[in-house]
Amino acid sequence: MQEPIAPLRQFTSPAEFVSAVAAVLERVRTKAPRVHCITNSVAENFTANVLLALGAVPSMTLSPVEIGAFVARADALLVNLGTFGRERREATSIAVDTANQGGLPWILDPVFVDRAPPRATYAQDLLFLRPTAMRLNAAEFATLAGAGDQLADLRAYARERDIAIGLSGARDLIADGRRAVTLANGDAMMARITAMGCAASAMVGACLAVEKDAFVATAAALTIVGVAGEMAAETARGPGSFAVAILDALYSIDSDTLAARARVTVTE
Amino acid sequence: MQEPIAPLRQFTSPAEFVSAVAAVLERVRTKAPRVHCITNSVAENFTANVLLALGAVPSMTLSPVEIGAFVARADALLVNLGTFGRERREATSIAVDTANQGGLPWILDPVFVDRAPPRATYAQDLLFLRPTAMRLNAAEFATLAGAGDQLADLRAYARERDIAIGLSGARDLIADGRRAVTLANGDAMMARITAMGCAASAMVGACLAVEKDAFVATAAALTIVGVAGEMAAETARGPGSFAVAILDALYSIDSDTLAARARVTVTE
Amino acid sequence: MQEPIAPLRQFTSPAEFVSAVAAVLERVRTKAPRVHCITNSVAENFTANVLLALGAVPSMTLSPVEIGAFVARADALLVNLGTFGRERREATSIAVDTANQGGLPWILDPVFVDRAPPRATYAQDLLFLRPTAMRLNAAEFATLAGAGDQLADLRAYARERDIAIGLSGARDLIADGRRAVTLANGDAMMARITAMGCAASAMVGACLAVEKDAFVATAAALTIVGVAGEMAAETARGPGSFAVAILDALYSIDSDTLAARARVTVTE
Repeated sequence: MQEPIAPLRQFTSPAEFVSAVAAVLERVRTKAPRVHCITNSVAENFTANVLLALGAVPSMTLSPVEIGAFVARADALLVNLGTFGRERREATSIAVDTANQGGLPWILDPVFVDRAPPRATYAQDLLFLRPTAMRLNAAEFATLAGAGDQLADLRAYARERDIAIGLSGARDLIADGRRAVTLANGDAMMARITAMGCAASAMVGACLAVEKDAFVATAAALTIVGVAGEMAAETARGPGSFAVAILDALYSIDSDTLAARARVTVTE
Repeated sequence: MQEPIAPLRQFTSPAEFVSAVAAVLERVRTKAPRVHCITNSVAENFTANVLLALGAVPSMTLSPVEIGAFVARADALLVNLGTFGRERREATSIAVDTANQGGLPWILDPVFVDRAPPRATYAQDLLFLRPTAMRLNAAEFATLAGAGDQLADLRAYARERDIAIGLSGARDLIADGRRAVTLANGDAMMARITAMGCAASAMVGACLAVEKDAFVATAAALTIVGVAGEMAAETARGPGSFAVAILDALYSIDSDTLAARARVTVTE
Repeated sequence: MQEPIAPLRQFTSPAEFVSAVAAVLERVRTKAPRVHCITNSVAENFTANVLLALGAVPSMTLSPVEIGAFVARADALLVNLGTFGRERREATSIAVDTANQGGLPWILDPVFVDRAPPRATYAQDLLFLRPTAMRLNAAEFATLAGAGDQLADLRAYARERDIAIGLSGARDLIADGRRAVTLANGDAMMARITAMGCAASAMVGACLAVEKDAFVATAAALTIVGVAGEMAAETARGPGSFAVAILDALYSIDSDTLAARARVTVTE
């Protein structure tokens, strides 16, 4: 059983929302939550470094004989589809069961479900296990939901599934069916380094670990990474230096930076 | 069945050759080809970032249940031996069959065949499946061909196998049996970061995706990476900053830079 | 059978110790030893780059059919627990047997044994196979030894097991039961990038390859990485630039830097 979502918090202004984001960031840094990551091998290193830069503590084992013990000691779980062989599916099954039994929040990143039917089927199976949140892009959302990336579609899907969804794109949309925000931060260079989306999903995990309101946690992670991306783009000379700079930005970003830079639209 | 190689283009001057290289680079950036990469886990992250910096789109799954779907939607395939367990061999077999049936170009990187006999045997098996191109170093070529790294040996081998070969070293040699070029670009620091050769092979894949002449595609990739390596070496303070700088260089390199810096000898 | 440890060298001053460290570094650069690394996929890329920056040559295959051939041609072996599925255990078993039969030094990094009981059990099994050295942190040592991180406990454990141990922390302790040093170098940022400890263990492997005295080799690796960490911290603006700068520092560090910066206490 998932823990019930905390009492609904409504936001009436961007400033109020950004203040909630800053509080989540502060709690990640103070509590240093453990995030167990099931992710693809391309993304593992960058994902771990993003979590460490933010202040969280990653672990990454995929071994069925020990993943239950790791998840039981963790504060949140990331399930990124990545490559899925038999052993990985077995590990994912154990990890999700452990999370659900312990009331641990978990986030699904259905990466590349638009590229191969078996991957989409597997993502649908995982959605039945009720992840706390999901982060994905428009092509992936269209594959899973049979719908576009309009905010109305996203809200309807989130309401039906009782899940917080973060849709990454030129603008990020976050909805949980009852609330929604649109974020206009980020930089085109974020699409020119591998695993940026996977790492953003892991950041959602870190935020879920310290914030029971999954909508706030998901939006907080995407706001932080979007602002950090803009900070990184100011000094980067290309994707190599951008990947370095965004880790530095995630380490140094603070409330003042968020307040000054976040471009949020709170939807009624 | 491979598609037949396009009508033979002869180069009579370095300038003409470099112009062809620049055209390939431009097409990679415009078409953003998908390159599916079977590679070792050490190399995956850097390889993906190199392809993204260049303008191509990587995918990396090794799962037998979905690799066929990924390759069928890709524009080129990289087969880097990496670690080869049973599952990986099965995935490679499906991927190569899918590529060959769809007329998709594929490149073999027989990394470390000089270190373990089973790896050399496996590379020979893959060569029978007729890769479009192969990139390797002198020790690996000697193991496969029982010959040295002289241009004559390389040309003979390429002619016999009907394959484009790029031999990386202090000077790069590229041949397809009927044509050959020698490249004098690159920097010693390229040997001090892991996966540089693997990533160069992936770049050959990206070039093959937009250039039917495998000799031109192979030579284009090695010219671009060699020039980018020289650009990176100008600002790097060691291998860490070099790895960052070469990604930035691959992102920013253009026709003028290629024309000014490429040091090519076209062989009769 | 392990080769017997070389005649015991006693150090009477920090300067004498640092001079021995510098000699080990010089031999790594001159001999370019091959270090075969069994490590987790998160750590592979950074570990390979750390070894290359230092001057060693990494290989990383985990395939049971070829790992024996790789280890037989290597100069040292790293066994980092990482994820341990069946195939990896089989590979580890072959690798350790090959190392022990050939008198090759090997180092155990029992990463995260404090997080999951199966991992601790496996580490204990590997300790019976008599690694030359072990590097770990205080929580991991407490799990394996049922003891704290005090130097006395470490010395007792090292004496009983006839092994060189490096305990990483705010201060590093190195002991082989008969000798001990304490190192005060390093920087807090080293805990904010993934795989730093894993890479330090790989560096112990590179030093063991060129220095028969396992205590000296272990202490040399940890001194070099600690000083490099301090050098990196001077220019880094966060963990992203720190990871880049420490690779540059490992490439450029020399005897003079070690002599000027190493903060060593030699214990009677």
